[in-house]
Amino acid sequence: MVRPSGVVTLLTDFGTRDGYAGAMKGRILAENPALSVVDLTHDVPPGDVLFGAFALAQAVSFFPAGTVHCAVVDPGVGSGRAAIVVEHAGQLLVGPNNGLFGLTVRGPRRAYRILEASLHPDTDRGVGVCPTFHGRDIFAPAAARLASGQSPAALGPEMGDLVPLSMAEPVRTGEGFRAQVIHVDRFGNLVTNVPEDCLSLAPPQRWIVEVGSAEIGGVSRTFSDVESGRLVAYVGGAGYVEVAVRDGSAARLLDLGRGAPVMIRGPVSHTDPDDGR
Amino acid sequence: MVRPSGVVTLLTDFGTRDGYAGAMKGRILAENPALSVVDLTHDVPPGDVLFGAFALAQAVSFFPAGTVHCAVVDPGVGSGRAAIVVEHAGQLLVGPNNGLFGLTVRGPRRAYRILEASLHPDTDRGVGVCPTFHGRDIFAPAAARLASGQSPAALGPEMGDLVPLSMAEPVRTGEGFRAQVIHVDRFGNLVTNVPEDCLSLAPPQRWIVEVGSAEIGGVSRTFSDVESGRLVAYVGGAGYVEVAVRDGSAARLLDLGRGAPVMIRGPVSHTDPDDGR
Amino acid sequence: MVRPSGVVTLLTDFGTRDGYAGAMKGRILAENPALSVVDLTHDVPPGDVLFGAFALAQAVSFFPAGTVHCAVVDPGVGSGRAAIVVEHAGQLLVGPNNGLFGLTVRGPRRAYRILEASLHPDTDRGVGVCPTFHGRDIFAPAAARLASGQSPAALGPEMGDLVPLSMAEPVRTGEGFRAQVIHVDRFGNLVTNVPEDCLSLAPPQRWIVEVGSAEIGGVSRTFSDVESGRLVAYVGGAGYVEVAVRDGSAARLLDLGRGAPVMIRGPVSHTDPDDGR
Repeated sequence: MVRPSGVVTLLTDFGTRDGYAGAMKGRILAENPALSVVDLTHDVPPGDVLFGAFALAQAVSFFPAGTVHCAVVDPGVGSGRAAIVVEHAGQLLVGPNNGLFGLTVRGPRRAYRILEASLHPDTDRGVGVCPTFHGRDIFAPAAARLASGQSPAALGPEMGDLVPLSMAEPVRTGEGFRAQVIHVDRFGNLVTNVPEDCLSLAPPQRWIVEVGSAEIGGVSRTFSDVESGRLVAYVGGAGYVEVAVRDGSAARLLDLGRGAPVMIRGPVSHTDPDDGR
Repeated sequence: MVRPSGVVTLLTDFGTRDGYAGAMKGRILAENPALSVVDLTHDVPPGDVLFGAFALAQAVSFFPAGTVHCAVVDPGVGSGRAAIVVEHAGQLLVGPNNGLFGLTVRGPRRAYRILEASLHPDTDRGVGVCPTFHGRDIFAPAAARLASGQSPAALGPEMGDLVPLSMAEPVRTGEGFRAQVIHVDRFGNLVTNVPEDCLSLAPPQRWIVEVGSAEIGGVSRTFSDVESGRLVAYVGGAGYVEVAVRDGSAARLLDLGRGAPVMIRGPVSHTDPDDGR
Repeated sequence: MVRPSGVVTLLTDFGTRDGYAGAMKGRILAENPALSVVDLTHDVPPGDVLFGAFALAQAVSFFPAGTVHCAVVDPGVGSGRAAIVVEHAGQLLVGPNNGLFGLTVRGPRRAYRILEASLHPDTDRGVGVCPTFHGRDIFAPAAARLASGQSPAALGPEMGDLVPLSMAEPVRTGEGFRAQVIHVDRFGNLVTNVPEDCLSLAPPQRWIVEVGSAEIGGVSRTFSDVESGRLVAYVGGAGYVEVAVRDGSAARLLDLGRGAPVMIRGPVSHTDPDDGR
């Protein structure tokens, strides 16, 4: 296992206003006041696992190795769903086994099921664990212990498959990809499920992006490649093809949201090797 | 006095967008850059002392002993209301004397009135204190000094009664409790003012919770004890009886808000000692 | 240069929910996990440079000397606008050169243009820099390096004039000032562009503030100088004349927003030296 960085991040759908996220911070610092607790966000819409998965995936890989990410978007709290720890690419993820890590964990990983008794050893009945608030009573103390150097295996047994994230993958067609919008961000940018490497088949300016009533010719480098108020397709910071309006909101202009279909069409027959940039 | 943990939490109704909460953080770190400043929330609705009291009470007790909680929901700023420090159960609370600590401080405590001159000794006229921004000019520096080891008594004289929180208490009736909703959280869960120990008179499944047009039979353990979309009563993380809709919002379904009446009725006459779980 | 305080503040228009602000925190802590990352706000309305400038100016001066403030409200990201560092009054500011520092930097300062190659030396082509996300790939690592002791000059060459903030200044008239509302805060308080020192010409109670349909006689000390529900003019924590409703919202009562004209009229002819307070 990687040496802990001392940083614990939090991502929840709790908002901050009710004090629930604050309670998690208290639990973490009570375990170890020397830890740095960092908010990713508490503004995931209630119960929206795909939204949380997107936000988590934007941030995790940029943290120092040995960081613990405590992520709680957990509509199944108190049911049989497992509480888990996943080690992936030098980061540790703690949360419910419901697909929340699906966009972050891509490649080799080890996963462990957290046993309540490992956190609350005085009892085998989960006394001290509120069945509607595992964020505070299970995930926060587990994250604090991992960030303080405890091994994931000390929290419970290793496990196999994780619950996958329920999300459509882009489909390769004769002329490109049949895709969809998987996230609409604060700026109204439409993030598709088409990763950048799909575009390697042709120069960026040869691709055509169709979304709603719009057809955008070429994948640009950035917003300012078009005039203010115009639609632009580009590869965003998340590594996916996105559609935006410069100085505006593509979601509002096109009246589209998550799940909207997207077609990305490549150049027809002939290829021109001098056409790159 | 307890040894400081080095942690200062902030709870305000300032939002973050105007930079006012940021100014408080600056004041605290300017006193002592080694302190950890932790946001509880800045999203308390403007001037809503009961809301702030609820949020504060969710979080305070989970922090390490010696933590300083700086809480500012202060519609009376600049008037005669006192600025205070309260020591309670190993935690220190700093804020206005207006009931904001009413759900947190239950039991023995010591309270001190903060004198402006103790913070700004060059003057006895409060120069340097903006009369509309005590959060920045009084509460933040007071919190920073307490978190750095200064004794509460150094900030001002000990005082007696605190302003109580104006909130209805549940009323014992022949068949149970006449209560009300004291908080609606982000998920639309309705938190009542009935603490868990009121339910000790009968097994949980024997209680009936009436709220708005709904009658819920039995206090359950968690959301997943009912089907998706159904109402459920349970004891929440706050320690009070709550009413929720699994995967939904009870506030929306029942069209109810804070202050809505709640009746909690226990089992009628006969008792059955084998009826527990 | 001042010795670093180890604190890096963040102010953006990213919100928190998409994970973009989280990615910036990761980049900073990956450079140096010992830094303290402090949120000013992420709730600046998208692309609203004046709003961001106001929020930043509320907070910066209160931080310990040697703090690095990383501020990103950047509608021109990816265009030719420069990325800059400004040293001012012991603080370091990092962000786009678009007026965002206009209300904070008043007086002597030194400014430097950040070269991408200084941050990503393996390449002179900005590889590793997403052209739509300089917050993560340029401003965050630059801030982290400055907070770790790197000199601004190591990031790029010194430069001259900064892009000014586009904002009306109050105009001196025969009887006072023709001004405007430059910010509406969370409480609905109307902040004007008239700084406190303009009022030094006459005792506060002699000024008359006209805004929308209202005429307010006298500049008061604080909200509680008037009755609940009444309009009050006062000098706010930002150092400007503000108009508020005690226990209410002036923006709502007067149906006014940013840009609304304000007239501040002083005493007519005769002066009375005993009229001060």
